Amino acid sequence: MKRSSILELLAQVERGDLTPDDAAERLATLPFEDLGHTRIDHHRSLRAGLPEVIYSRGKSPEQTAAIFTRLAASGVDVLATHADHAAADLVLAQHPDAQYHALPQLITLRQSSPADTGGRIAVLCAGTSDLPVAEEAAVSAETFGVEVTRLYDVGVAGLHRLLAVNGQLREAHAVIVCAGMEGALPSVVGGLVAVPVIAVPTSVGYGASFGGTAAMLGMLNSCSPNVTVVNIDNGFGAAYVATLIARASAR
Amino acid sequence: MKRSSILELLAQVERGDLTPDDAAERLATLPFEDLGHTRIDHHRSLRAGLPEVIYSRGKSPEQTAAIFTRLAASGVDVLATHADHAAADLVLAQHPDAQYHALPQLITLRQSSPADTGGRIAVLCAGTSDLPVAEEAAVSAETFGVEVTRLYDVGVAGLHRLLAVNGQLREAHAVIVCAGMEGALPSVVGGLVAVPVIAVPTSVGYGASFGGTAAMLGMLNSCSPNVTVVNIDNGFGAAYVATLIARASAR
Amino acid sequence: MKRSSILELLAQVERGDLTPDDAAERLATLPFEDLGHTRIDHHRSLRAGLPEVIYSRGKSPEQTAAIFTRLAASGVDVLATHADHAAADLVLAQHPDAQYHALPQLITLRQSSPADTGGRIAVLCAGTSDLPVAEEAAVSAETFGVEVTRLYDVGVAGLHRLLAVNGQLREAHAVIVCAGMEGALPSVVGGLVAVPVIAVPTSVGYGASFGGTAAMLGMLNSCSPNVTVVNIDNGFGAAYVATLIARASAR
Amino acid sequence: MKRSSILELLAQVERGDLTPDDAAERLATLPFEDLGHTRIDHHRSLRAGLPEVIYSRGKSPEQTAAIFTRLAASGVDVLATHADHAAADLVLAQHPDAQYHALPQLITLRQSSPADTGGRIAVLCAGTSDLPVAEEAAVSAETFGVEVTRLYDVGVAGLHRLLAVNGQLREAHAVIVCAGMEGALPSVVGGLVAVPVIAVPTSVGYGASFGGTAAMLGMLNSCSPNVTVVNIDNGFGAAYVATLIARASAR
Amino acid sequence: MKRSSILELLAQVERGDLTPDDAAERLATLPFEDLGHTRIDHHRSLRAGLPEVIYSRGKSPEQTAAIFTRLAASGVDVLATHADHAAADLVLAQHPDAQYHALPQLITLRQSSPADTGGRIAVLCAGTSDLPVAEEAAVSAETFGVEVTRLYDVGVAGLHRLLAVNGQLREAHAVIVCAGMEGALPSVVGGLVAVPVIAVPTSVGYGASFGGTAAMLGMLNSCSPNVTVVNIDNGFGAAYVATLIARASAR
Amino acid sequence: MKRSSILELLAQVERGDLTPDDAAERLATLPFEDLGHTRIDHHRSLRAGLPEVIYSRGKSPEQTAAIFTRLAASGVDVLATHADHAAADLVLAQHPDAQYHALPQLITLRQSSPADTGGRIAVLCAGTSDLPVAEEAAVSAETFGVEVTRLYDVGVAGLHRLLAVNGQLREAHAVIVCAGMEGALPSVVGGLVAVPVIAVPTSVGYGASFGGTAAMLGMLNSCSPNVTVVNIDNGFGAAYVATLIARASAR
Amino acid sequence: MKRSSILELLAQVERGDLTPDDAAERLATLPFEDLGHTRIDHHRSLRAGLPEVIYSRGKSPEQTAAIFTRLAASGVDVLATHADHAAADLVLAQHPDAQYHALPQLITLRQSSPADTGGRIAVLCAGTSDLPVAEEAAVSAETFGVEVTRLYDVGVAGLHRLLAVNGQLREAHAVIVCAGMEGALPSVVGGLVAVPVIAVPTSVGYGASFGGTAAMLGMLNSCSPNVTVVNIDNGFGAAYVATLIARASAR
Amino acid sequence: MKRSSILELLAQVERGDLTPDDAAERLATLPFEDLGHTRIDHHRSLRAGLPEVIYSRGKSPEQTAAIFTRLAASGVDVLATHADHAAADLVLAQHPDAQYHALPQLITLRQSSPADTGGRIAVLCAGTSDLPVAEEAAVSAETFGVEVTRLYDVGVAGLHRLLAVNGQLREAHAVIVCAGMEGALPSVVGGLVAVPVIAVPTSVGYGASFGGTAAMLGMLNSCSPNVTVVNIDNGFGAAYVATLIARASAR
Repeated sequence: MKRSSILELLAQVERGDLTPDDAAERLATLPFEDLGHTRIDHHRSLRAGLPEVIYSRGKSPEQTAAIFTRLAASGVDVLATHADHAAADLVLAQHPDAQYHALPQLITLRQSSPADTGGRIAVLCAGTSDLPVAEEAAVSAETFGVEVTRLYDVGVAGLHRLLAVNGQLREAHAVIVCAGMEGALPSVVGGLVAVPVIAVPTSVGYGASFGGTAAMLGMLNSCSPNVTVVNIDNGFGAAYVATLIARASAR
Repeated sequence: MKRSSILELLAQVERGDLTPDDAAERLATLPFEDLGHTRIDHHRSLRAGLPEVIYSRGKSPEQTAAIFTRLAASGVDVLATHADHAAADLVLAQHPDAQYHALPQLITLRQSSPADTGGRIAVLCAGTSDLPVAEEAAVSAETFGVEVTRLYDVGVAGLHRLLAVNGQLREAHAVIVCAGMEGALPSVVGGLVAVPVIAVPTSVGYGASFGGTAAMLGMLNSCSPNVTVVNIDNGFGAAYVATLIARASAR
Repeated sequence: MKRSSILELLAQVERGDLTPDDAAERLATLPFEDLGHTRIDHHRSLRAGLPEVIYSRGKSPEQTAAIFTRLAASGVDVLATHADHAAADLVLAQHPDAQYHALPQLITLRQSSPADTGGRIAVLCAGTSDLPVAEEAAVSAETFGVEVTRLYDVGVAGLHRLLAVNGQLREAHAVIVCAGMEGALPSVVGGLVAVPVIAVPTSVGYGASFGGTAAMLGMLNSCSPNVTVVNIDNGFGAAYVATLIARASAR
Repeated sequence: MKRSSILELLAQVERGDLTPDDAAERLATLPFEDLGHTRIDHHRSLRAGLPEVIYSRGKSPEQTAAIFTRLAASGVDVLATHADHAAADLVLAQHPDAQYHALPQLITLRQSSPADTGGRIAVLCAGTSDLPVAEEAAVSAETFGVEVTRLYDVGVAGLHRLLAVNGQLREAHAVIVCAGMEGALPSVVGGLVAVPVIAVPTSVGYGASFGGTAAMLGMLNSCSPNVTVVNIDNGFGAAYVATLIARASAR
Repeated sequence: MKRSSILELLAQVERGDLTPDDAAERLATLPFEDLGHTRIDHHRSLRAGLPEVIYSRGKSPEQTAAIFTRLAASGVDVLATHADHAAADLVLAQHPDAQYHALPQLITLRQSSPADTGGRIAVLCAGTSDLPVAEEAAVSAETFGVEVTRLYDVGVAGLHRLLAVNGQLREAHAVIVCAGMEGALPSVVGGLVAVPVIAVPTSVGYGASFGGTAAMLGMLNSCSPNVTVVNIDNGFGAAYVATLIARASAR
Repeated sequence: MKRSSILELLAQVERGDLTPDDAAERLATLPFEDLGHTRIDHHRSLRAGLPEVIYSRGKSPEQTAAIFTRLAASGVDVLATHADHAAADLVLAQHPDAQYHALPQLITLRQSSPADTGGRIAVLCAGTSDLPVAEEAAVSAETFGVEVTRLYDVGVAGLHRLLAVNGQLREAHAVIVCAGMEGALPSVVGGLVAVPVIAVPTSVGYGASFGGTAAMLGMLNSCSPNVTVVNIDNGFGAAYVATLIARASAR
Repeated sequence: MKRSSILELLAQVERGDLTPDDAAERLATLPFEDLGHTRIDHHRSLRAGLPEVIYSRGKSPEQTAAIFTRLAASGVDVLATHADHAAADLVLAQHPDAQYHALPQLITLRQSSPADTGGRIAVLCAGTSDLPVAEEAAVSAETFGVEVTRLYDVGVAGLHRLLAVNGQLREAHAVIVCAGMEGALPSVVGGLVAVPVIAVPTSVGYGASFGGTAAMLGMLNSCSPNVTVVNIDNGFGAAYVATLIARASAR
Repeated sequence: MKRSSILELLAQVERGDLTPDDAAERLATLPFEDLGHTRIDHHRSLRAGLPEVIYSRGKSPEQTAAIFTRLAASGVDVLATHADHAAADLVLAQHPDAQYHALPQLITLRQSSPADTGGRIAVLCAGTSDLPVAEEAAVSAETFGVEVTRLYDVGVAGLHRLLAVNGQLREAHAVIVCAGMEGALPSVVGGLVAVPVIAVPTSVGYGASFGGTAAMLGMLNSCSPNVTVVNIDNGFGAAYVATLIARASAR
């Protein structure tokens, strides 16, 4: 709750427009909406200036669509992650302007005029199988108004592929690196750039990859000090942080 | 290796000042020094504009001191992490201007004129036992030329302590949160600020904390999308990334 | 076996109504029924004054229905947990008064007159996806005769949502908190109330949540001393304990 | 922060005794003391009516003593857990009335007149090696004003030892069960009583006990629904919750 | 290979009936049959006097049937474990005398005259869901010619159920205990009998049971010294060992 | 408690020598001694006919000595495991006839006339480093009156060493196999003998042996059906079970 | 990139045929093709002289076919691993000369004249269920031009089966051993041969095999020093390394 | 046992120089020596043509020295690994020609004339802290008669250091790569060379490195198909396999 709102409230008390008792009550009443199953938090969006986001996994298509509609009603951009085809069909039926990205399972709705934040990020992935996660990061960041350079299939076992894109890499304000298996790519990229690298372990692999755990541990132990890590397959989270960095860097 | 150096080299070949054979040789010769046990990489420092860093754990005091001296000779700022008293004594005997920070086990040597980067970060910790890690982050960032606000002992079980520092929190370009045990603090802080939060799990705790693993897993699963994670007790890494963000944000 | 029954038995021996040999035999004969596949334990219900409970997972619908019928025959309230639709259909065909709660997969049959125990608990959950577990807790507790306040979707990343329900929280004799992902909510709630908090890790999340393990470890490491933990997704167990506390507190 | 304080504050604003700006400032100023390294939270004690507690592990003897003195100054009872001999010596030198319990490593200072809460708990342990944890629970609970029945060395491999104390067990408002190795005791005890059982896994054991992990997992999977679990070796936490239950039950 | 065969072979060499070269060749030729995909080991059966056993999981119904037929051809008893309906149908079509046990997924073929070994074992399980594993143990042991007492649903949370069967328990030469969840039953049973207890962790449970791992660790940490453990759900292995013990004890 | 004692008790009631009330009391009074810190269970020894055993780890030398003395007083054989030199010195000072085995850290006191049970076991170990555990098994079994054949340093990487002792192996009623690292030896031995093999994983190894976990998992997954497993380094437990088998087999 | 190419390039600069700027550009341009989703690396094949390989899991049949076609176009041998029937159908429709191996899920296309490298390897597996992995290794190696001796179903519990093939084993330049469950076979084989043994843990097993983890840990802890390990089920990787060894040994 | 020995034996039987009974006895008598605590296996050395090796950890200095002396007596080269100073002092006192390498804790004794095998390997390590393991590999390989190129401190975060040694790397018959932390180096090196890469995870690191587990998992998941893995810190094992490959390649 913003300081200005509190001051406004207290001024009302000072003017006698509000009894202390009512004011105390309002101090506890914060601007979120109760949807029964979900409390929509308009604060976050206001705070960060980023679209509202719905995490669709574990929600019924109906729940996803209801939240989507409520958020869209407030005029902001909307992003739904981990949305399957059933949810997408329902949402797009109600919001013809929304768009479904099948590979990364994202629904996006742009209602604001495209902001030219000037922020630039690069999204890398180690192999073809990492594409869904990389695209979740790339499309999310684009929805957040950031320019994205995609550099895919540049795994460390063929170093020349990575070195060949070194120039493009250097122009980013932040770099997202998605990799499964041994998760070595972020460390190598971290040594090539002077900006933060956000590492996304992917669940790609088999056997001792333990669903992305090997990659995640490798990334947390990175010998490059500019590497931080998000959860396995969390392309959205990486895009969120990279956007915050790129926007601040471009200002 | 910078493109300009390659162009310079190729120009020499063009002018006949250098045979192709010699040029091929030089292309493979890159600017690092071989110290026998260590190859010093002056590149990193040049690239990021940050001090040279020595990771002292697992090195003998003599090795630490030798690398420190070699780095100091190049006139840059130097930072040694995880340096015990024996290493510190040896280094300070040779470098009276260096400073030892016993709690976070850091040796710092400032040789550049203090840069006023304008960057501001906040370092939080959940409890008193997290102080060594928090101080490793804070002192490292200060050595990197960033202004640090320390907000210690603000764990989530006493929420009013955290809410009381909300204002100070909001002024940072990036926030570092150190926490052991359940590692819940970064998620809560992540909900309060609109900048990247770098979470540092600490090995504080016992039993099912498994040396910081519980906190680390909690942070990786954070429901706040602006949270990224570094290795357990890696205050230095958090400071490195926070510095990159703060400097870029302040520019 | 109650002391009174033993005394009764021994009195019969004293009176010569029973030979020592027969008495010895009876001492080993305890009041449970053998259903072939299941030994029904009427003791537990008598002891705690709570309904009989059937754990349906891993049982065939026929087994569930058979046990349900036998328990219902004794006139007590009956609760079946983890009951899928097939089991529910079979049970409700035989017991039209029973009720199926699809979300938490519970079948309830109330045969006693509703007890007004005076006990009040609050059930919180961090996100929409935790609803099935939270409802398992809430409906179970209601079946046990306790008044339940549901406070859903109050995760720590939007602290104002939680603070807004602080008043309702304070009226509970015990609080159940269901949370997946990082499992931070119980620690925060633990700091807000002065009653026991029973934390239920949920399997909600992905990647490094490891099916609820991250949340479980976080809760076990809680820095709030009034937090205890039950198994992942064990809403029923939490309700059982919260009921014992609330009833004793309200007495 | 209590509602009454907020009302008081708002009344001052209404009376013109306080400007809105100053009031806003005060609303953020909460009653904790800043000790440099530690923010003492007098709230918790007020809230729960229990002594102030210091977790001494990871703190220097000087830090422990400083916090102890500050807490004692406010006239409340004080409890320091995980205090080694060095910390105890320093504290007792300054507080001759304090008492050191070497086995469970507790320092206690009673300054209130002994409350007769009427609460009764039982503390059980499976083997002799579990004694330090069991005593941490027992002494903590006694400090909290609860009557404690100690029932030690009653492991499940010799069932008659447990059955022999069944009567004493039945009189408790809550039962704490400390066990290492396979951690089976809480399940068995849970079947014998109709009150909450708080299970404390201990790090007693070797090999596949993995420092108490085996016991902890066993307890979390307990087939007795009245069992909840705290962290490995966390006798204090168990005492805290058992006290809350016993006091409420005895009221 | 038996010493007598070697002596026989060497005698042939001594008599000149066999050249050293041929003898060397034969020494390496051991009595197993090569089926292409499988090398049938008739030795094991001869050695232990137990039926041939086929582990059907991961084999096609055709492979299972082929091995079954080859084994049956030698006139011994045959046992196939983990056989699904498809495999059973194929085998029974070819061997009308074979029998399929659907719950424990066993196919048995008895061709020897029933041996009265005099061996007696007890098979216990903690709950109804453990039945498939318990039956795998019981039927296997019966196929091996041992008398089996089934004592099911005698979990530790209702101790009187277990105590009621104490007498039957005492008559066994070996006891098999199947339990999931916390796996406490073998420790309790171990304290009641003076014979070896073979503990079988089952994958029954959810959440922190981790597919039987919690039960397995509990059993390995048993405080009863007469408990040994086999793999999760390995009822067959438990029956094999219990049979060896019971036959030797009854001799 | 033996049935005969119960009958005796009931007979007293029948004769009027005992009131029902007193009898009820006595039924709960079972034959163990309370030593303050330890409840000595004379039952176990009576039941299995094996010596009393003290687990000394985690006990003070004084506690170990006190229990040892109390047990010795009853005239039975006594065995203390995991006894360090301090405990041994104290015990031997009071019991000159006791014997200390330093390698396996056992104290033994033989007071019964040596029983010739006729039981024979073999104890194998894979490498020299497994000796302490193997000797714990061997000496324990000898104390229990069983004849032990030691076959040490017969690891699977040099198969001829194992094959050379095949004959001795075949004469045992039960075989104990101690192995660290990959824990492969029990499977190989299991294929060579027709008696139960008790596998003892040892904590010998480094890196991915994880303190014996790799060996333990290997043994639990043994493809030889006559293998059961005890806890890491639990030579005593293996000896206990092997003794039960050998004695029953020799009868 | 080969030194000769760099020299060639530099010579062009020297001759004035190429400007330094263009040369700098070319130095970064390396011989791989960009297929949109995949960057084909013709280098690897040239470097090692082995076929191009496609890892098909996680790729759509269309993606697999597209890469296959592009690789085949360059005239080299092609191998696709983890290819399901859908992918195989699509590839074989376009490449009638390609061959599908259903058990190990491999597609092979031989376009070179069969090389007689003279390399010989042996592929062993412990049980019938390990066949798919063993065949992945065997067929891959054959595609690489190596002669393969298959020795299947020679698990350690029937040692004579293994000893019977000892002669064939000794003729290999490298040995691949596939085993699940306890993974003991590589250690035993390692003791029988004087060449490198490549151990492949398979996911065969259940319960505490944890999907091949037990076997993998066992192999990493092998007491035979000539054993190295690849990922669970990675028959292809084992074949790749064994081929490199066999070819070099046969030269 | 070699075939020639068996033929020799059988020939003696044929000639009547040996009775079948004696021959059968001898067939079981294999050429190893029994040292009480250790069975020395002269076979291994003969078989592979490599020195005898003693694993000293867990052995007393006296045991190590005794085995060393017995091995040395047979005239072969001897290597003791994991030998601390105490063991080294004792061995060198008895064998003045032996040499102690303190960093990798190796004792070597060369008694054969130096073999010029022509084999060449490279040993790489990622950082200075990996030196002890790298040296264990390098010195072991040199003792085995292989030429070793040491390329140290070439971690992936400074790629130019690695690229600068590319030429030296290419000349090796096999490459050993030692790395802790994220263990990324073997994958990168695997992409640069066409020979087998043996990856050695080291226990260097902290926090989520879990004593080398993160590096080990990363290496097992390597995307370079020419990488195999040995146990954490097992420099000796890597040297053993690399030697086998290099010798065979150089022949």
